[in-house]
Amino acid sequence: MSAPYTLILLRHGQSEWNQKNLFTGWVDVRLSDQGIAEAKRAGELLAESGLLPDILFTSVLTRAIQTADYALDVADRLWIDVKRSWRLNERHYGALQGLDKAETLEKYGPEQFQLWRRSFDVPPPPLADDSEWSQANDPRYAGLGDDLPRTECLKDVIERMLPYWETDITAEVATGKTVLVTAHGNSLRGLVKHLDGISDEDIAELNIPTGIPLVYRLDESFAPLGPGEYLDPEAAAAGAAAVAAQGRK
Amino acid sequence: MSAPYTLILLRHGQSEWNQKNLFTGWVDVRLSDQGIAEAKRAGELLAESGLLPDILFTSVLTRAIQTADYALDVADRLWIDVKRSWRLNERHYGALQGLDKAETLEKYGPEQFQLWRRSFDVPPPPLADDSEWSQANDPRYAGLGDDLPRTECLKDVIERMLPYWETDITAEVATGKTVLVTAHGNSLRGLVKHLDGISDEDIAELNIPTGIPLVYRLDESFAPLGPGEYLDPEAAAAGAAAVAAQGRK
Repeated sequence: MSAPYTLILLRHGQSEWNQKNLFTGWVDVRLSDQGIAEAKRAGELLAESGLLPDILFTSVLTRAIQTADYALDVADRLWIDVKRSWRLNERHYGALQGLDKAETLEKYGPEQFQLWRRSFDVPPPPLADDSEWSQANDPRYAGLGDDLPRTECLKDVIERMLPYWETDITAEVATGKTVLVTAHGNSLRGLVKHLDGISDEDIAELNIPTGIPLVYRLDESFAPLGPGEYLDPEAAAAGAAAVAAQGRK
Repeated sequence: MSAPYTLILLRHGQSEWNQKNLFTGWVDVRLSDQGIAEAKRAGELLAESGLLPDILFTSVLTRAIQTADYALDVADRLWIDVKRSWRLNERHYGALQGLDKAETLEKYGPEQFQLWRRSFDVPPPPLADDSEWSQANDPRYAGLGDDLPRTECLKDVIERMLPYWETDITAEVATGKTVLVTAHGNSLRGLVKHLDGISDEDIAELNIPTGIPLVYRLDESFAPLGPGEYLDPEAAAAGAAAVAAQGRK
């Protein structure tokens, strides 16, 4: 099939740690009940819009996998092909993983806090391999060797995510399949930055809401034919504002 | 990695139609509550045995996909790679799909009933494309064209399943990964027939219980080094007896 191609991005619903306002990163927490409801709603939006995915890409984190599975089940597409990669994972939050966002804000002040959360190229301090929140011994990353991050800034996320987009994901897009990518706030911000040509400075202001499919039409070189469109624009605007407010108690 | 390789077969847990004693085949029913409990128990058995799958193969039927997802979630392996194929589907039961097993037994008599259920090469009458139980317009089979069955005997199942075993599944087995195949009574009977060299006559007597992982160790030519072993042999024996008793009220 020829262009325009259809790409759907979906940020996972609320996790147990989003709910507790903790930095999560690569810690493998589950969806909260609200997150499950968001995922099912995403599936309803896909079904109502008639945008039915033919193939799914997810990170290897449970909350993204659960989001996809609940959404696809509601949309009666549980049977589609699936590919997973650590390259779609959330940003590794380094030594911040497991810390309370509000306490971190209070302890380090708004400037340092915002630098860690939103600077393009300043990673938090690295997470020690003997931390209870480390992934150094997680079997799902056994093949990564030196590629396993101990901390990441958004620039690092883009550097490990983009090769996967440019090889594996676009290869499926090019077949004309409707491609669903279910991932995380920062891996999706990185992809949207690439697609929309957002500058390193302006990406700080971009917030992607949870659980609302974001649809792009792409041309033959995988460039967007227009801005991405949320399937529920009002809920998306409210959700993006909620993400921006994170860290405030 | 070199042999011995590890292959785990898992028949889906009880479905809503198993519970109602209806011929199911390719009709896409969901797991019953008991089926979900069986799937979770299968995950516990995998975790307790330390036999942790690295890759999953499923049919494209929801009950097999659900079984794998519940089991892998319990075993903390939701993140492994997944491949799905219609070639692992249950036998297409033709015009019997949707019929009550006990009523069918009563109407056609035990001889005809047992012939349809267990003969190697006699398929039931074909299912009409305008039947409410037909898959002729199901989008998941849109690419099959003339390969879409309207009825199948076990011989037909083996003919469409075995090429998938010999190419896609053994290719992953050969890498040394622990391979989980989550499928159906008849697609798994076909695979066990092939692995254990069971004759066309004797396969009629083989019943595979639901929800209990069956583990094979394979040599470099993918031949079993010994009989397959159920992770819970007592439950497996009881389960196989229950399958054999199906159709009786």
